[in-house]
Amino acid sequence: MSKYWSPLVSQLSPYVPGEQPKLQRLVKLNTNENPFGPSPRVLDAIRAQLDEGLKLYPDPESQQLRETIAGYYGVRPGQVFVGNGSDEVLAHVFYGLFQQERPILFPDISYSFYPVYCGLYNIASEQLPLADDLSLRPEDYLRPNGGIIFPNPNAPTGRCLSLPEVEMVIRGNPDSVVVVDEAYVDFGGESAIALVDRYPNLLVTQTLSKSRSLAGLRVGFAIGHEDLIEGLNRVKNSFNSYPLDRLAQAGAIAAFEDTGWFEETRTQVIAERERVTESLQGLGFEVLPSAANFIFCQHRQQSGADLSARLREQGIIVRHFNKPRIDNYLRITIGTAGQNNELIEALAGIVAA
Amino acid sequence: MSKYWSPLVSQLSPYVPGEQPKLQRLVKLNTNENPFGPSPRVLDAIRAQLDEGLKLYPDPESQQLRETIAGYYGVRPGQVFVGNGSDEVLAHVFYGLFQQERPILFPDISYSFYPVYCGLYNIASEQLPLADDLSLRPEDYLRPNGGIIFPNPNAPTGRCLSLPEVEMVIRGNPDSVVVVDEAYVDFGGESAIALVDRYPNLLVTQTLSKSRSLAGLRVGFAIGHEDLIEGLNRVKNSFNSYPLDRLAQAGAIAAFEDTGWFEETRTQVIAERERVTESLQGLGFEVLPSAANFIFCQHRQQSGADLSARLREQGIIVRHFNKPRIDNYLRITIGTAGQNNELIEALAGIVAA
Repeated sequence: MSKYWSPLVSQLSPYVPGEQPKLQRLVKLNTNENPFGPSPRVLDAIRAQLDEGLKLYPDPESQQLRETIAGYYGVRPGQVFVGNGSDEVLAHVFYGLFQQERPILFPDISYSFYPVYCGLYNIASEQLPLADDLSLRPEDYLRPNGGIIFPNPNAPTGRCLSLPEVEMVIRGNPDSVVVVDEAYVDFGGESAIALVDRYPNLLVTQTLSKSRSLAGLRVGFAIGHEDLIEGLNRVKNSFNSYPLDRLAQAGAIAAFEDTGWFEETRTQVIAERERVTESLQGLGFEVLPSAANFIFCQHRQQSGADLSARLREQGIIVRHFNKPRIDNYLRITIGTAGQNNELIEALAGIVAA
Repeated sequence: MSKYWSPLVSQLSPYVPGEQPKLQRLVKLNTNENPFGPSPRVLDAIRAQLDEGLKLYPDPESQQLRETIAGYYGVRPGQVFVGNGSDEVLAHVFYGLFQQERPILFPDISYSFYPVYCGLYNIASEQLPLADDLSLRPEDYLRPNGGIIFPNPNAPTGRCLSLPEVEMVIRGNPDSVVVVDEAYVDFGGESAIALVDRYPNLLVTQTLSKSRSLAGLRVGFAIGHEDLIEGLNRVKNSFNSYPLDRLAQAGAIAAFEDTGWFEETRTQVIAERERVTESLQGLGFEVLPSAANFIFCQHRQQSGADLSARLREQGIIVRHFNKPRIDNYLRITIGTAGQNNELIEALAGIVAA
């Protein structure tokens, strides 16, 4: 607290990201990073930019990257907005689209940055409870609101709505913006990008941090009607003209170009997810069906907090949320086969003890 | 305009950055980039990060970079805040420190992003006129206010206040934050970082885009009392946890470590600035005294708009502001000796015609 702060700063409850431990020896399954590195073509593309050109400002419009993303998804470049990670994209969404008279809606169990953005921009929200099985009921979102946002697949549950279910929410809210946060969609969901030309109130956000293995590069994007994108651009250009540096733009373009790497690595993650799920079920875990690169699970006898602490003793870091309804669960990122084996063996030892 | 925008979005007047022409053949003297590339050690440091580690999130606290900057300036790491270019740092400053009851103060001729931030966050401001010679009068800033910001050296004038003049403003405003925006200070100004331990209301911002030739990498920082930095961190962590990617952090650290490259290149820029100034004076230009990597000048006979257009015909891009009081001036970035010679020859031809 300081007399020099804007008054609302003391009321903020900042987001707490998953721990980024500095030790190298850990099995790090806590922040849903991809166990495979980025495409070698990404590294080559960045390397090719490593010259004295770095002295020049990047393209403030990220035009080539937006064209690449547009081509990939079959939309127009004017329907694409890019930002410094999807967290920045989401911040501009909350500022530019969600400051409305009515409260916005999102699930009670969901990405924990949403309420933080609401705090930052003084946006009222209603957090709608997930069903008892932690699934999202689309019919709950057919009520007056100033905007809607939900992850699909949801995080940290991993559960996914079908495209018709997503469309029910979009179609039922023609007067407000529906944001589908598809950070994890490439691991088993169906993207709502297919619907953007039919619904001017739909905005889809995605990230290159997960399925494209570029958490360290910070690139996210949104796709929707040109009017929504223009609103985001007005905010972005009033905040920071150049959010994406030259290396990030070059690397992101290459990531979309190397479709082979993308398909191969995400297929392996999906296969490992199914293998880990079965193994954990065999150890007495209830594992929610996941369409993401993580699983959300609880053990029938042992508490999540306890399991998390005991895994940590063995150098394995998973995410435990000390929150109502989910405090018995663990969110476990799918790692390499070797990492997953270490996890399974450690859990087998713990639950047998 | 869209019914889906937050109401204030339609009232925003976004910043318009200097043109980033795609043609390679231009002599680009319009956005105050450094004519010399970044240190080779910066490129090496980034190259060393180009591996599968990019799949992992960066350090959200940029701890090693903040330690490096702190060591360089002789302050504590807790006094350092870093962001995605100084534009992002400034956006958080306006949000986190300048939303106060009284209007903030800045010069009428100054960095044109300041009024844009005010528009974004609905901050009232008083723009105090520079003196007739376009110098900033520190005594004007001794009046009630909700915060003060000015560039030193000022942009686009290039004029610099002495450290005692800056200190007069800081000391005279113990109840509000004084932000000294030192984007260009390394080209001839004296940094107010020397004063941060004496004044809890002082915040100094800098960028790596100018004297460290990294406009393409997007790194800026602020130095001040820990309480001010904590306020900025609360905002940053409510907006985007990971504003600096892994490559930017590594490159920025190396940029501070290679002091030889820094000294050598800035010395050359300063020497070229003096040479260009004398040459233009010989052609009938009035050139304001500059402590930056650009000059601000007007010709005694020919209009700035006209000169700018005729330079462009010859492939030389400079910045002309179509604004009251300065619409006859050109802001010309100091380039390499070769670029500067092209500029001088072109202007000689134009004014002789």
